[in-house]
Amino acid sequence: MQYHLNGYTAGDPHITKAADNVTPGPKDHLPEEVDVLIVGCGPAGLTLAAQLAAFPHIKTCIAEQKSGPLQLGQADGIACRTVEMFEAFGFSERVLKEAYWVNETAFWKPSDDRRDQITRSNKIQDTEEGLSEFPHVILNQARVHDFFLDVMRNAPSRLEPVYSRSLTDLKIDPQNKATPVTATFEVVSDAGKKQFETVKARYIVGCDGARSKVRQFMKRNLHGDSANQAWGVMDVLATTDFPDIRLKTVIQSANEGNMLIIPREGGYMVRFYIELDKLNENERVASRNITSDHLIKAAERILHPYSLDVKEVAWWSVYEIGQRLCDKFDDVPDTEIETRYPHCFIAGDACHTHSPKAGQGMNVSMRDSFNLGWKLAAVLSGTAHPKLLHTYSAERQGVAKELIDFDREFAKMFSAPTKTKDSSAVGSVDPKEFQAYFVKYGRFTAGTAIQYHPSLISAKPKHQGLAAGFEIGTRFHSAPVVCLGDAKPIHLGHTVKADGRWRLFAFCPDEDPAPKTAAIHKLGEFLEAASNSPVVKYTPKAADIDGFLDVRAVLQTYHRDLALEDMPPFFRPKKGKYGLVDYEKVFCADVKSGEDIFEMRGVDRRNGCLVLVRPDQHVANILPYDGHTELAEFFETFMISQT
Amino acid sequence: MQYHLNGYTAGDPHITKAADNVTPGPKDHLPEEVDVLIVGCGPAGLTLAAQLAAFPHIKTCIAEQKSGPLQLGQADGIACRTVEMFEAFGFSERVLKEAYWVNETAFWKPSDDRRDQITRSNKIQDTEEGLSEFPHVILNQARVHDFFLDVMRNAPSRLEPVYSRSLTDLKIDPQNKATPVTATFEVVSDAGKKQFETVKARYIVGCDGARSKVRQFMKRNLHGDSANQAWGVMDVLATTDFPDIRLKTVIQSANEGNMLIIPREGGYMVRFYIELDKLNENERVASRNITSDHLIKAAERILHPYSLDVKEVAWWSVYEIGQRLCDKFDDVPDTEIETRYPHCFIAGDACHTHSPKAGQGMNVSMRDSFNLGWKLAAVLSGTAHPKLLHTYSAERQGVAKELIDFDREFAKMFSAPTKTKDSSAVGSVDPKEFQAYFVKYGRFTAGTAIQYHPSLISAKPKHQGLAAGFEIGTRFHSAPVVCLGDAKPIHLGHTVKADGRWRLFAFCPDEDPAPKTAAIHKLGEFLEAASNSPVVKYTPKAADIDGFLDVRAVLQTYHRDLALEDMPPFFRPKKGKYGLVDYEKVFCADVKSGEDIFEMRGVDRRNGCLVLVRPDQHVANILPYDGHTELAEFFETFMISQT
Repeated sequence: MQYHLNGYTAGDPHITKAADNVTPGPKDHLPEEVDVLIVGCGPAGLTLAAQLAAFPHIKTCIAEQKSGPLQLGQADGIACRTVEMFEAFGFSERVLKEAYWVNETAFWKPSDDRRDQITRSNKIQDTEEGLSEFPHVILNQARVHDFFLDVMRNAPSRLEPVYSRSLTDLKIDPQNKATPVTATFEVVSDAGKKQFETVKARYIVGCDGARSKVRQFMKRNLHGDSANQAWGVMDVLATTDFPDIRLKTVIQSANEGNMLIIPREGGYMVRFYIELDKLNENERVASRNITSDHLIKAAERILHPYSLDVKEVAWWSVYEIGQRLCDKFDDVPDTEIETRYPHCFIAGDACHTHSPKAGQGMNVSMRDSFNLGWKLAAVLSGTAHPKLLHTYSAERQGVAKELIDFDREFAKMFSAPTKTKDSSAVGSVDPKEFQAYFVKYGRFTAGTAIQYHPSLISAKPKHQGLAAGFEIGTRFHSAPVVCLGDAKPIHLGHTVKADGRWRLFAFCPDEDPAPKTAAIHKLGEFLEAASNSPVVKYTPKAADIDGFLDVRAVLQTYHRDLALEDMPPFFRPKKGKYGLVDYEKVFCADVKSGEDIFEMRGVDRRNGCLVLVRPDQHVANILPYDGHTELAEFFETFMISQT
Repeated sequence: MQYHLNGYTAGDPHITKAADNVTPGPKDHLPEEVDVLIVGCGPAGLTLAAQLAAFPHIKTCIAEQKSGPLQLGQADGIACRTVEMFEAFGFSERVLKEAYWVNETAFWKPSDDRRDQITRSNKIQDTEEGLSEFPHVILNQARVHDFFLDVMRNAPSRLEPVYSRSLTDLKIDPQNKATPVTATFEVVSDAGKKQFETVKARYIVGCDGARSKVRQFMKRNLHGDSANQAWGVMDVLATTDFPDIRLKTVIQSANEGNMLIIPREGGYMVRFYIELDKLNENERVASRNITSDHLIKAAERILHPYSLDVKEVAWWSVYEIGQRLCDKFDDVPDTEIETRYPHCFIAGDACHTHSPKAGQGMNVSMRDSFNLGWKLAAVLSGTAHPKLLHTYSAERQGVAKELIDFDREFAKMFSAPTKTKDSSAVGSVDPKEFQAYFVKYGRFTAGTAIQYHPSLISAKPKHQGLAAGFEIGTRFHSAPVVCLGDAKPIHLGHTVKADGRWRLFAFCPDEDPAPKTAAIHKLGEFLEAASNSPVVKYTPKAADIDGFLDVRAVLQTYHRDLALEDMPPFFRPKKGKYGLVDYEKVFCADVKSGEDIFEMRGVDRRNGCLVLVRPDQHVANILPYDGHTELAEFFETFMISQT
């Protein structure tokens, strides 16, 4: 953590200085006019709000229909990739401490001898070795909300949601340049008289769930399964002699249905996902009058011959869900992309719904708005062209489609009868086959396999060979390094914070960096002074030199063999009101630990390379170390010069 | 973290359920009667208060002369051992995140050619490899206070300090069994009329600093140096071309004095400790009218030929300190130990003062009261005999003496002129010798070398050979293991929390643990049912089975090759109001990672052993795995049977 740059301040360093004109504390009415209006305080809405809260010059409002923050229930799976994102928001350590860690997954199937009993078929490591520096964890969605709310509350804009607001009308007028969006909310209350509030906005983002009103006003629909699958879910405190109760466990019983066991945080609670019936079209599961007792009985039957004695049901629900997807995540028809920019977006369940089995819902939703947040911030700050906003739907709709396809196949296999020695009914699945599929898609469920296609912010892989392990379009895969200034071993990827900045990691070629003729000096001179340098062109006037592009050098040498004073001045930048030196711009491979980032990520030692990373942690481009012009050109298509 | 045992509760799991009769929030008056009265809200007082706050049946009060919590300045060094203690209090991750990490130490000396200039003589790793799983870190004392205040506030007793209370009188009447202590405080205020409050208490603990009033009322004195050393200290935001400004650096200049550079948290701030003059007896440094400008000038001279441009002085102070020590840390004279029990204690600077150079002060102070807290809790809970309280002074005075001796020698070397090629003045120190001493005493300054002598709670090392790496009397040196129930890799030592419980780590012999004849089953049967089992004898009636002694088994086998259901029932205990199973009692060596705890700590593989750990993390005894009777006998000398 870096703090005290502009003078010492006492107290918790997470609480940044409030911007002028900000009044902290809960709000009792919606503002009349904002830059961004977020509808819905779920994971997607809060991720976006937390990101935008870092920009006090952008006026953001987040409205929620419910009367207050979520207390229990709902989603709980947090993929490795999502913890990486939490690290960027500064609260990964809180999640890791409280959460259950999914270390292994157990598979149970009907016993060959006695089909009415289940038996363990295998136990596997849940997450592939080296996939991420973070584990796959499980934590109450309500706690994730709490952490985002803390980030918002501690940010310069001191952002707080406005609760009890239900969207009743939405109009988009693209002709109105200042505030094309007009949204009307009803104040949800027990009082007799109805009360309405109207908000004018430049952008609106619907994070309002599967039955999104924003999507409906936009006249877009979810497409996919015609019928829903009914699910029962319950969080219980229970005793059992089932031995894998503290492991994530997939149970396929012969005739009693299937179940997923998710151990929960705190060491005692456990969640059961029980697959119920396929519903008729337009049928709601509520009509079936299923109670928690039904779910307990179903779990008991599936677990046979093991006992289950439920002592407390902390939360339970039955719900219906299908694999559905919206064609486009914004208000611009495909035919008008060249002539219009979007002003209305949807994110999360509003544009895609999943079965709970792959644990994707909450994760994909948060990453939707993490993709959108920095783009809105850049456009609203006048540093990026509004056409950047087209990439949101293009990137996230593509990802959602891949996930839905995967999810559908996974769900089908999950629900299919198990193949036995004697029978092989049509569509039946061999438990071994199911497990193999599960392993293969580990990267997918971990969220690390997501790869954005080439676009104005994701380069065609021309120089990918210079760093095979940093695949363009995928998230930057962190690895350990040592900071030259203070000799601290850190993860390079953890320098990427959710602050809307781009990062350039300059992996230096294998040469002595001290002489002024070395490539690192050339790079420093270009970035600092060249008229086409992105640092020179796009850094806002009032910002520090790393305010747009945060450049960090990574050297191959053991850190004690390097002298800080030999590094180019650009890599020892003076910042803040006092011009204090930032000593955290030069890193060395962690040679001593044996975890050499050049080795681990296949970086070309002889030539080095530049790895350009987007504000949402995805690799935008790989360039030769001296590819100054190519670097400049990359930004020219969508950035607005500040000079 | 384990929570939800007695039913699901929403919100932050750090906030435990408040005990009945507790009124949360700040207090505006002192209570009339308490069990423990703590005087002083420094590190020693807060550590004690945080520990006692976990016991709501013990009435604790902590009073402070200042008007509110510390905001800045004072101590900043946090030794590895102290971070281990913070882990027990549940906030190590907060410290690690905010703090500066001391990774390396640089040494600078006068240049051989030009004696008026300094030059680097060496850089070394600050902390010996494998000394602790935690680093040596630097963080504002005020933040450490904040973390303890949070622990107190979130504990069942919702403890808050009472500020603006100055001790004016103290009487101890050993004849009064109920409340031998009567303390009078003046309410510090600007109002004209003086106001006093009186508190009656069973025990009083003076954590009120070097000029402790509690110590004075007890008629004890600090002994040691007749004269004080004057020091200047300042936290600054500055620019410099001195290359090691972000490393802990010891500078010995030829003629301008010596200085210690301590980089501070946040990446920009740095602390300078500047050695000033030796004072005359009874002289106070305040009389010399030293200003921050003097300190800046001195730092500039010492750093020559490097520049220093101080932009902001966040905090500065000059102070005098000698190496002093009190003979005894309680109110019982040596001659009356057999006939009386102590009721008045002192801790921290009240009983020992150090030079700031070894960074010991705050660390030793906190560990004083960590040693005392559980003893007071046990005696007040009626589980331990009051003679246990004699061990506090015996153990901590001994430790303080060793530290003072070390500190004095270290300070002498620090202040001595540097030996040169040509001169070797009496008392001059070769920089190489100084550095060697520094390295040798690394374990001492890290706090891991502290070893308590044999006493009723620290056994004579009869079976030490069974686990050479867990030295009796030293703190339990943690190592990685894997939890059998959920396959989570953890540090075994992190199961030790600051909850007043004893721990027994049962390192199992190299045998199949499944058969009922295996040693682990014998141990389980003994602990669960034998009339002389410490679990049976000393566990309070209302407590869970691990309420007094928390027993954890450690096996040598790879965790996937073990079946949870084969473990004895004692290691799958049913707890809480529902009788839920605690699945975190059995661990396996982390075979896959190659960090095998049996190997790392020299545990006898063939025979196994029992490692008994005190509530303050120190190893109390090593016993054979079947040493049931010896285990029982250990507790009989000081515990009170609850049966």
